[in-house]
Amino acid sequence: MTDFAKTKSLFHLPAGLLYLDGNSLGPLPRAAADRVGAMMQQEWGDLLVTAWTRADWINQPSRVGNRVGKLIGAPAGSVVMGDTLSIKLYQALASALEMSAERKIILSDSGNFPTDLYMAQGLIKSLDRGYELQLCEPEEIENRLSAEVAVLMLTEVDYRSGRLHDMRSLTEKAHEDGILTIWDLAHSAGALPVRVADCDVDFAVGCSYKYLNSGPGGPAFIYVAPRLVEQVQPALCGWLGHQAPFDFGLDYRPAAGIERMRIGTPPILQLTALEASLDIWDMVDIEDVRAVSIELSSLFIELVEASCPELELASPRDERRRGSQVSFRFEHGYAAMRALIDRGLIGDFRAPDIMRFGFTPLYLEAGEVRKAALIIEDVMSNRLWDRPRYHEHSPVT
Amino acid sequence: MTDFAKTKSLFHLPAGLLYLDGNSLGPLPRAAADRVGAMMQQEWGDLLVTAWTRADWINQPSRVGNRVGKLIGAPAGSVVMGDTLSIKLYQALASALEMSAERKIILSDSGNFPTDLYMAQGLIKSLDRGYELQLCEPEEIENRLSAEVAVLMLTEVDYRSGRLHDMRSLTEKAHEDGILTIWDLAHSAGALPVRVADCDVDFAVGCSYKYLNSGPGGPAFIYVAPRLVEQVQPALCGWLGHQAPFDFGLDYRPAAGIERMRIGTPPILQLTALEASLDIWDMVDIEDVRAVSIELSSLFIELVEASCPELELASPRDERRRGSQVSFRFEHGYAAMRALIDRGLIGDFRAPDIMRFGFTPLYLEAGEVRKAALIIEDVMSNRLWDRPRYHEHSPVT
Repeated sequence: MTDFAKTKSLFHLPAGLLYLDGNSLGPLPRAAADRVGAMMQQEWGDLLVTAWTRADWINQPSRVGNRVGKLIGAPAGSVVMGDTLSIKLYQALASALEMSAERKIILSDSGNFPTDLYMAQGLIKSLDRGYELQLCEPEEIENRLSAEVAVLMLTEVDYRSGRLHDMRSLTEKAHEDGILTIWDLAHSAGALPVRVADCDVDFAVGCSYKYLNSGPGGPAFIYVAPRLVEQVQPALCGWLGHQAPFDFGLDYRPAAGIERMRIGTPPILQLTALEASLDIWDMVDIEDVRAVSIELSSLFIELVEASCPELELASPRDERRRGSQVSFRFEHGYAAMRALIDRGLIGDFRAPDIMRFGFTPLYLEAGEVRKAALIIEDVMSNRLWDRPRYHEHSPVT
Repeated sequence: MTDFAKTKSLFHLPAGLLYLDGNSLGPLPRAAADRVGAMMQQEWGDLLVTAWTRADWINQPSRVGNRVGKLIGAPAGSVVMGDTLSIKLYQALASALEMSAERKIILSDSGNFPTDLYMAQGLIKSLDRGYELQLCEPEEIENRLSAEVAVLMLTEVDYRSGRLHDMRSLTEKAHEDGILTIWDLAHSAGALPVRVADCDVDFAVGCSYKYLNSGPGGPAFIYVAPRLVEQVQPALCGWLGHQAPFDFGLDYRPAAGIERMRIGTPPILQLTALEASLDIWDMVDIEDVRAVSIELSSLFIELVEASCPELELASPRDERRRGSQVSFRFEHGYAAMRALIDRGLIGDFRAPDIMRFGFTPLYLEAGEVRKAALIIEDVMSNRLWDRPRYHEHSPVT
């Protein structure tokens, strides 16, 4: 059994704060600032440009990718880090469309994170070859699969409701119709067991600053099934995805394997912060994370529903259909979330009316969930959200 | 006059090392590690997700972009940071092609940095609409401009030879033929005065980890002329380039102005390191940098040519045609550069035979240039490069 008291001790968690927003930005691993500081001083500072080889920066995107790969069930050499999730999604989709020849439909659902949809819209518009992004309700996906669909592009865990798609079943059904699959694991990696290889997923992408705790703007990752990767002709073909970047040839030739999904110079500071977090992840069994996450989120639902009739559960009640977050609908959710934050409980708000709370066993325990529920009860039953200052809009939580 | 003794004191420069490779990776600003450490501890650590607003991370790409803009002659609100240079180049080119309607030729030169060419090749292949990347010799550009050309895409300073294009004249001539211009400022920003607005450039992109000293993998920048930016429909349209990202709407609508060139979540650690460097840049007049850079590089050419007949100058002798680096051709340049590095002189090697040295007045002075020339003389006249271990290839300097 994972020692969660131990993992919790390895994060910096401000005293008196209840942090139920690790699904948006994970907290600081205590070792991260020293780790980044040492890299800056001893590698950047002392080795200067030679650190690309002497500190092996050049291979950090694959080295770290392999560690992230373990958390999503990907074999070594099938995951690489870099860029943002938006860019990695674009790479995956552009590659998948090129492999799909005549088919014109990209199928997704209305619960997908907007940037995935926007990037698809931008790609479709650029290509100008009659591609169409079709959105349906999450429950309708299975019925919409057909031999007309080129790519099924889904986020496994809905960022608003926490609804969890059945990756295995949908991938299998998509494949029966010859559809390529792209899974966005933004709210999955580090939140629950993911088995991209075992589920025979074609492409997967995700970010590292949520459950993987890499810090703001940490690098994204991309997985390409080894059976496909040598066919991928990257649309975003940068020099570090070249077979021989330091030959400086005039024509692009893709590197072998997943390395071809690299683009430009990797963000070494951000990758180093992620490494500090992955050291904690090395002590963790993701099955234990899932078990405790379900305990915590189920307890939270039970307590909040018992004390706050105004809040309507927006997440699946069935724990098997839920990721590692719980959302409630409330008309004045924005103001209520600000009132909670003022009282030391951090969750976040997603328009139009979703109050969202994330459950992260690495550093969150049942006692804190109970305290959080009491604060929510106080804010709701005493209408503490009903103050003018909580209704003034600012862009993010 | 800029106080270069002062600026030098603000960088960490390992004792005994002669660093003539700030054109590849700038050295560590002494304040950077503390600055990043403080950001990690006090913002990420203590404010957690609320730092997006409370520490204004959300606007850091534009805030820092304005500071970089000052160094390239761009007005406030016309530069934004993010991603890598490869991605920013792709964004600029995709936008320029869309604005150019019927024209099919992208003109560049054989001295452009390969990733620019690769990204263009990838875009052309994806679009599949008969676009063609034409490369000519740098001296031929002017003769190749015509009403058939959609976009002129050049790197102002050649990464190998240091040859400097005449940005003003080429942009003007391109515009006479209705051609849009994209200037890659990788080896220009912080190296010499750049006046993108005054030269009426259409798009400019660059990186921050060379002369701007932001550290390995620091963010890139993009400039779009204010007269054009509202027409730009980004091909890579991520959520943070949306008009209202926190409405989480299903359809992309570009943000006003340069903000639309943002894509995903910005790399806050890397941006913060860049801010530490920009504090030094605030003390600097770029005209002084240029004057001292010419002194240093001219001195270097004079000394090396006088003592090393085997080395052939690969950079323009005319200082007005040269950026802030000097390159020499030598058949055994790879081995010779390794021998130099072993003796504490860091430059770099670019295939097939270029030994490259960068001149960076912020922390390099004439005495060091003299010492560097003596080491080169020693290595060359005593054939110290002619040892087996210097010929074993490793990928980077």
